[in-house]
This record gives sequence, structure tokens and C-alpha cells, in this order.
Amino acid sequence: MPQQIKIGKLAVLAASLTEEELSGFADHFNQVRCCQGKAGSMDVQKIIAAVETAAKRNGIIKENVYRETHALYHAILEGLHGVTRGQIGVGTMMRTVGLRFSVVRGRPYDHPGEGEWLAVAFYGTIGAPVKGLEHETCGLGINHI
Amino acid sequence: MPQQIKIGKLAVLAASLTEEELSGFADHFNQVRCCQGKAGSMDVQKIIAAVETAAKRNGIIKENVYRETHALYHAILEGLHGVTRGQIGVGTMMRTVGLRFSVVRGRPYDHPGEGEWLAVAFYGTIGAPVKGLEHETCGLGINHI
Amino acid sequence: MPQQIKIGKLAVLAASLTEEELSGFADHFNQVRCCQGKAGSMDVQKIIAAVETAAKRNGIIKENVYRETHALYHAILEGLHGVTRGQIGVGTMMRTVGLRFSVVRGRPYDHPGEGEWLAVAFYGTIGAPVKGLEHETCGLGINHI
Amino acid sequence: MPQQIKIGKLAVLAASLTEEELSGFADHFNQVRCCQGKAGSMDVQKIIAAVETAAKRNGIIKENVYRETHALYHAILEGLHGVTRGQIGVGTMMRTVGLRFSVVRGRPYDHPGEGEWLAVAFYGTIGAPVKGLEHETCGLGINHI
Amino acid sequence: MPQQIKIGKLAVLAASLTEEELSGFADHFNQVRCCQGKAGSMDVQKIIAAVETAAKRNGIIKENVYRETHALYHAILEGLHGVTRGQIGVGTMMRTVGLRFSVVRGRPYDHPGEGEWLAVAFYGTIGAPVKGLEHETCGLGINHI
Amino acid sequence: MPQQIKIGKLAVLAASLTEEELSGFADHFNQVRCCQGKAGSMDVQKIIAAVETAAKRNGIIKENVYRETHALYHAILEGLHGVTRGQIGVGTMMRTVGLRFSVVRGRPYDHPGEGEWLAVAFYGTIGAPVKGLEHETCGLGINHI
Repeated sequence: MPQQIKIGKLAVLAASLTEEELSGFADHFNQVRCCQGKAGSMDVQKIIAAVETAAKRNGIIKENVYRETHALYHAILEGLHGVTRGQIGVGTMMRTVGLRFSVVRGRPYDHPGEGEWLAVAFYGTIGAPVKGLEHETCGLGINHI
Repeated sequence: MPQQIKIGKLAVLAASLTEEELSGFADHFNQVRCCQGKAGSMDVQKIIAAVETAAKRNGIIKENVYRETHALYHAILEGLHGVTRGQIGVGTMMRTVGLRFSVVRGRPYDHPGEGEWLAVAFYGTIGAPVKGLEHETCGLGINHI
Repeated sequence: MPQQIKIGKLAVLAASLTEEELSGFADHFNQVRCCQGKAGSMDVQKIIAAVETAAKRNGIIKENVYRETHALYHAILEGLHGVTRGQIGVGTMMRTVGLRFSVVRGRPYDHPGEGEWLAVAFYGTIGAPVKGLEHETCGLGINHI
Repeated sequence: MPQQIKIGKLAVLAASLTEEELSGFADHFNQVRCCQGKAGSMDVQKIIAAVETAAKRNGIIKENVYRETHALYHAILEGLHGVTRGQIGVGTMMRTVGLRFSVVRGRPYDHPGEGEWLAVAFYGTIGAPVKGLEHETCGLGINHI
Repeated sequence: MPQQIKIGKLAVLAASLTEEELSGFADHFNQVRCCQGKAGSMDVQKIIAAVETAAKRNGIIKENVYRETHALYHAILEGLHGVTRGQIGVGTMMRTVGLRFSVVRGRPYDHPGEGEWLAVAFYGTIGAPVKGLEHETCGLGINHI
Repeated sequence: MPQQIKIGKLAVLAASLTEEELSGFADHFNQVRCCQGKAGSMDVQKIIAAVETAAKRNGIIKENVYRETHALYHAILEGLHGVTRGQIGVGTMMRTVGLRFSVVRGRPYDHPGEGEWLAVAFYGTIGAPVKGLEHETCGLGINHI
């Protein structure tokens, strides 16, 4: 089943590229709905809240429909597994400096019955508790909506 | 500590962009050593072997030095956590169609004492055991070498 | 948001009660679609295939729509976490004797916009590799569809 | 080795059925010792304390014998793996509304040497941090005592 | 509650020290029952079988009592978590060279009601799939019996 | 590749033996750099800080070089997996009484290109939240530096 629109790749680009670098991909972004944001904490609960708030404020998901929040929630969790690389439970002990996220909603498949899907991507730096020491991290989650 | 060269971002781009899309980032890739490859299986052991072989054949890591293989091995495992999103143990039951990977070696930090680091990125599609059904996945691992 | 129909509870009952015991809950089951089955192996891939096959054969999910399979797949994985209790990766070394499963599809919420959801439940016995030694196990996964 | 008394099934029923529904299973409950309770928090530490307190207050386990507390503790943890479905580490970011639990102590096996075993079951609703949005969850843990 | 006999420490010593080094601890080992063995594979199922067989053959646990096997089984699994350091699911892709194990059964606590407990320790080398490259690993599991 | 100096075994001994017991291994410890310490909390973040501080104060790793802290950090995490036996995310709910740790830095391999490696070991007692109830625990992590 051919994937026409790569919502995951677009989400990763939206989270990791500069505005100038992104401009070269404008044609692709015209086919989806997308929002971006920043999360300045490694508290998993605050990151989830930041992504949810951004997605609702930008109309990517509906405010009062649980099934859309549920879809987003699991896509966020999947993306965070990439960010914490198997240590999601120890996430609270790490420190981030400028974790950026993006949410992309679109129709990746030709077949209309497949409907809409969500991609959530994270990119930024993550560090040990001591300041000044960090390296890059990235994560991507995908779910049907 | 400012990161001058974002080896993680470059690895993600090398794994996910087309050759044409990558050409816009040539200046950045001149500052690092990079190789790419494909893994056609979701057997974790085979993916590790494929990345190791590519990294050694392209001179990214030294063939006979365990500490370099050890560094690469843990960067691969970290990247696979993003690919399998917390289900690395169930990886064998999934099916991939065109998982691409990249290995980038460079000096992300200004301070010369920080030396060289490795980034391993994966991008592709992953699916349930039944053929024809898959969605995108992405992972990034970083380690000092 | 009140849950009118408890699809998770019904799935657990359908997986764990005898036919006679279930007859007392017939009114509840009239409000949902439900199928049952058995999985005689602890190979995670075979359990997933058994549940998928049963759900499609009984018309609980549509055969050719990836988003429905994707929803079922993640509900199965969630249910298996309960069965293996945090050891899903070591599942292959365990042995089951009569693991029964059920899939329930229904509308748990009053609000029509919440649409349909899936519940997958497992109940049975699980044991160490040596035959004749096992105890009970149970798991439940829920997802929007 | 035939299991005569299904302490796990009884624990699941005690946690999920209404008092009226349970009355049909009275004969089975006469063969075991059982207590029930509620946990209004998703703080893992508080849930453990609530179950331990209930089990000791109702004489299911002895107050001052570590091996009985140790057996209960691991049965609780196993049950919580089902509740959190592989995300036990992120448990603190979730919210429960009316998680009920039960502890059943009995002799599941014919052979007298097998002695007593414990079953701990959870059933209730679990949700994202935002209020008003939740779905069902269930977990079961078993241990020898 | 003072621990008089440190069965865990003795198990670790029995798994990691040479016979000569162990001789200095003979007084301590007189207070417990202990057996040792080797596991030449990283197949989790085979390691479990090797430890079980050794423990039964040496009379550390009773052959036909499930609760003793159940206690040993969970102690083995806990010890393997240390060996694989959070990657138990990927255990099959690693390679060991001379993993030694020990099982110690004793009464660690003064209070007679606490009865007997089991300690299972592992020590050896673990490596990436490529031969010749490995480092040390160690694990300890404890359970009541 | 023969391992001449077993830094992991030495780290485990330094964490678990009494000073008197350790004196018999003095020859081995002359070949490495080693420090010891205690961590009185089960808060993962505080344990990491305690080990880092001890390692830097004793000159085992350099204070201002991220790659050395990064190497130590992952060795600590690996060791903690053994301590928490697969439940690292629930670490905060447990209680320790006298967890001792050691950090050993040395050259385990004959080949000079393999350079220096780090071993971090933990040994002590771990318990349920209720005071007075605990059993032994042990963990070992190894990394190149």
C-alpha cells in the first residue's frame, strides 16, 4: 500500500530544521496540517500537556473529543520512547535544553478508507542532571485518528 | 557547552531524505564522516550486523578495536528504541519495508577534549506481520567514541 | 464523561467465564459485537495472528483497512503486557496452556462523536518452560477505532 | 497439574463486578480468603500502600512477616504492569478514577505441598492528565506465599 | 530487621570468584546450601533450564513442587535483568562466553517465621554478535521460597 | 580477546566486601583506580549525583569533560538496572538501607588501542516502602571511556 504523504518524515523535519531549511519543503507541508512548539522540561507530564495544548490551540485535534486526544496521547508516548531511548521511566532525572516538537495530521494513504493519521516528532538536546552537558535526541510516534 | 556540529540531526537527514533533498545540506556533511545503508529485516541481530558492517567497510569505525564497536553497538541499540518505540523485545514480530540507516562520526563540541562522537539514525516503515500494512518509524542514538 | 457500556469489563468476562457463567451477562453483550478464541502458543507473533484472524473472520474489524488492524494491533499489545507482566520480551520462553481471548467492539461513551472502541482481553494459564507448572494470567487492552 | 481453585479469576471478578453480580459466584469465594478496596491515586507508591494496608487489616497476610509482604509486593507489581500496560514508569503522569482492587489468598492446587498462593487484581478507569477522559484498565498478579 | 546471613553476597561470590578465592569464605558457605554451574548460551530459555536443572540435581529446590520452581524462576529472571541491563528482550542477540551462575538457599533473617530464601547470581562475559568482543556482566535475584 | 584485568569483578568486590575481606585482593586493586561511596536514597537522580561526585572528587573521571561524564552516566544506569531488576521506572517507590557503590577505571584488555574502561557496581539492601523489610540487591555497569 503506497504511502503518498510521509507525515512522519514531515514531522521530523518540522521539529529539527530551521525555518530557512524548512522553506525548501513547503510543497510537502501544503498537503498536511502541522503545528510546532517547544517544551522546556523533561517532566513527561508537562511535555504531554505542552503538545496537547499546542495541537488543540492550532486546531490539529478537536478539543472535546476523547478519541482524538487518545490518539495524540499514544503518538506522544511513542515519540518519547525515542527521546528517552528505552528509559522513559527515568525521564524525570534528565534535563532538556530546547526540546522542539511538531504535530502533523494528514492522509498518508491513497485509499480514502484509511482516513487521517497523526505524527508527533521531537528533536532537541537531552542531558544528565549536571548543566552544560547534553547531546541530541529525536523521537517519532504515529497513530490513526 | 555549544554544539557546533549537530551530528544527530545530520544522521536523521541522511537516513530520511532523498539524495536530491540531501544536496542542500552538503556544507554540513563536509564536516563529518557519514555512511548510509539499508536493512531489509526486523531481526534486531541482522540490523546490528548490517550497520556494523557498513560502518567498518566505510571506515567510520576501526575494524579491530572493541571500544569503537562497543560505542557503535550502544548507539544502534538506542536508535532501535526509537524505531520500536518501547517494544524492542517484540521487534522480531514486526516487519519492515525499506528501513534505511546512517552512521555519522564527528566532533560536535568546540572543546577539543570532547573528541569524536557517533550518531546512528534509522528511518523507514514498520508494519504488523501481515503484508501491505505499515507506517513510518524513526530512531536516533548518540555515543562518545 | 460517563461510560455507558464497559467494553473492557465485557471483554474480560468473555475471556475468563464459562459459557454458563456468561449467560447471566447476556443483556450487556447485546450492546456490543464480540468474538472469542483460543491461542495455544506463547509465540507473540502467533497470538497476534490468532486474534487478528478471529476478529476479521467474525467481522469485528474490516479485513482491508489498515487503520482498523492498527487499532487492534495496539490493543492486543497492551493486553499482552498484562499477560506477560512486564516481560513481554521474554514471552517466547514461557508456555501457555489454554490462553483464551476475546475482542469486543462497541460505543462506550454517550457522546456520538467518540465513536467505536475496541477491547481485547486475555485469560488463561502461563508457565515456566517445564510442563505441568503454571498459574493464571490476564490482560486487557483498549483502543479507539 | 490441575488447578482446582482459580484464585486469579476470582480476584478479577472481585475487582470488576458489582456486589449483585458477585453474588452468583458466592460458592467459589467460600473456598478462599478475599478482601477488596479502592485506590484513588495513580501514584504507584500509594496504590501499593493501599493494597498492603487492606490485606493486613483483613488478615489476608500477616503483619510482621516480611516473606508475606514480599509475596504481596511482587503480586501487586505484576498486577500494575497490566494496569499501566508496559508504561509502569510513566504511571505517575496518569490519572485514575475509581481503581478498585482485590486480594485473594487460597490453595489453587490439589497437591498440599503447593500451599497457599496470592492473587491481586485491579480494575477501573485510567486517563490522560486532562480530566474527563479515561478508559478501562485491568491487571492481575499471582505469587506463592 | 537484621540480616544475619547474606545469601545474595554469597551467591555473587560463588558465581564470580575462583575456587581458591572462595576458600577464604568457607565459614559463610557452611551456613547455606549452594550450587554452581555454567551456561554457554545467551538463549534465555536455555539459561533458565540450566539453572533449574542444577538447582534440582543438587537438591537446592524440590523437583516436584511448583512453588519452589516458581520462586527460583522469578529469582532467575531478576538476576538476568542485571545481566542484560534492561535489554532482556534483546538477550537473544547477544553472545556469552562463560557465564557462571550460583544458587544459594538459606535463612537470611533471625526471625524463624521468615523461613528460607533463594539467591541466584550470574557472572561472566557478554558480547556483541561478533566474536572476540565482550565485557563483564553480573546479576543477582532474590526471592522467598 | 583475553581480558587481563577484570574491572567488573573488582568493582563488585569493592562494593560488597568488608575492608578486611577486600585486603586479600589488594594485588588486583593495584592495577586499577577505584573509589567507593554510599547512597542513602532510592531517588535515581540522587544516586547518580552521588556516584558522579565521588568519581570526580577522587579523580576517577575528569570534572569538565562531557564524554567522561557521559561514559560514567551510562555505566551507572546499567548498574541500576541490576539493582532495580527491570523496574527502574518504579525505583522511586523503593527504599534502600545502605546501598554502597564503587567505580573502577582500568585497562581490561591487552591491546593498548582498547584504552580505558569504567565499571560501576552497587551492592546493598532494597525494600518495600514499609520500613524494616528489605533484601539484598546488586548491579554492575561497564562502559568504555
